[in-house]
Amino acid sequence: MKQPWALDYEATNCSVAAAVAVIGEKWTFLVLREAFMGVRRFADMQRRTGAPRQILSDRLARLVTDGLLSKVPYREQGQRARQEYRLTTKGMDLYPILVALMQWGDRNAAPAAGPYTLLIHRDCGAPVGLELTCADGHRLDSARDVTPLPGPGARKLAQAG
Amino acid sequence: MKQPWALDYEATNCSVAAAVAVIGEKWTFLVLREAFMGVRRFADMQRRTGAPRQILSDRLARLVTDGLLSKVPYREQGQRARQEYRLTTKGMDLYPILVALMQWGDRNAAPAAGPYTLLIHRDCGAPVGLELTCADGHRLDSARDVTPLPGPGARKLAQAG
Repeated sequence: MKQPWALDYEATNCSVAAAVAVIGEKWTFLVLREAFMGVRRFADMQRRTGAPRQILSDRLARLVTDGLLSKVPYREQGQRARQEYRLTTKGMDLYPILVALMQWGDRNAAPAAGPYTLLIHRDCGAPVGLELTCADGHRLDSARDVTPLPGPGARKLAQAG
Repeated sequence: MKQPWALDYEATNCSVAAAVAVIGEKWTFLVLREAFMGVRRFADMQRRTGAPRQILSDRLARLVTDGLLSKVPYREQGQRARQEYRLTTKGMDLYPILVALMQWGDRNAAPAAGPYTLLIHRDCGAPVGLELTCADGHRLDSARDVTPLPGPGARKLAQAG
């Protein structure tokens, strides 16, 4: 078998690792799901995710620190001021990850009745999904159609040189 | 503010939750990254991910149990028989999730030199990426162009009826 080139390169600086260092944790994904569904308040997120209070608080704080959510104050009549959580531009940029998770879940773990959520193009009403495409306009079916190559940021291992 | 419809529905059976229940954990993502890079052996995965031995062993076993990886025996000359780990069809189906993570990392956390990995269309050599599209053929720019609606599997909360 031909060795994968990855074995001759450091693995520490790859973008998958960088992404999961920020969001690679169950509760964080569920918080982001809430944010993309328009749910912005702590109590609502807590009820819907089932996250323990302290964990939810930690994950929200981390997402704010990392610049993925911002805190915006609000006040209901007769209540004290509270914060709601909104996606920043950098946070909105996570959307394909959530859609990819949803699509996989829809295909492999949806309730018998069908998917929980339908994603609809706001302008035309047609269903939305992710497609793997190349810059020349071809649609790809799977990972088998893709060759991963070392990019400019890949560093060869010292002992492999 | 208009309430998101999600607040009137149960959140337990959504597909994002189902997907992260299977793969929503840092080490699992890194193991899947390895598998998609063609890295199949325990020792190689351990060295590249930096996962503690027991954690890697647990995550691989879980991925095999969930039908995302299969174990295939191999034997190097003069060595005892070992197992390598290959993506199943259901595992290959996770590819858009990994690509979405990689794209986000490339945009938000890539090394100064550029991305670690380039994804190339095997047939034509052009760079590969994910696109958000609708069934009518429109390309969507962001989550702002998408309306999430309750699907057939969404269950209204009892108290909301």
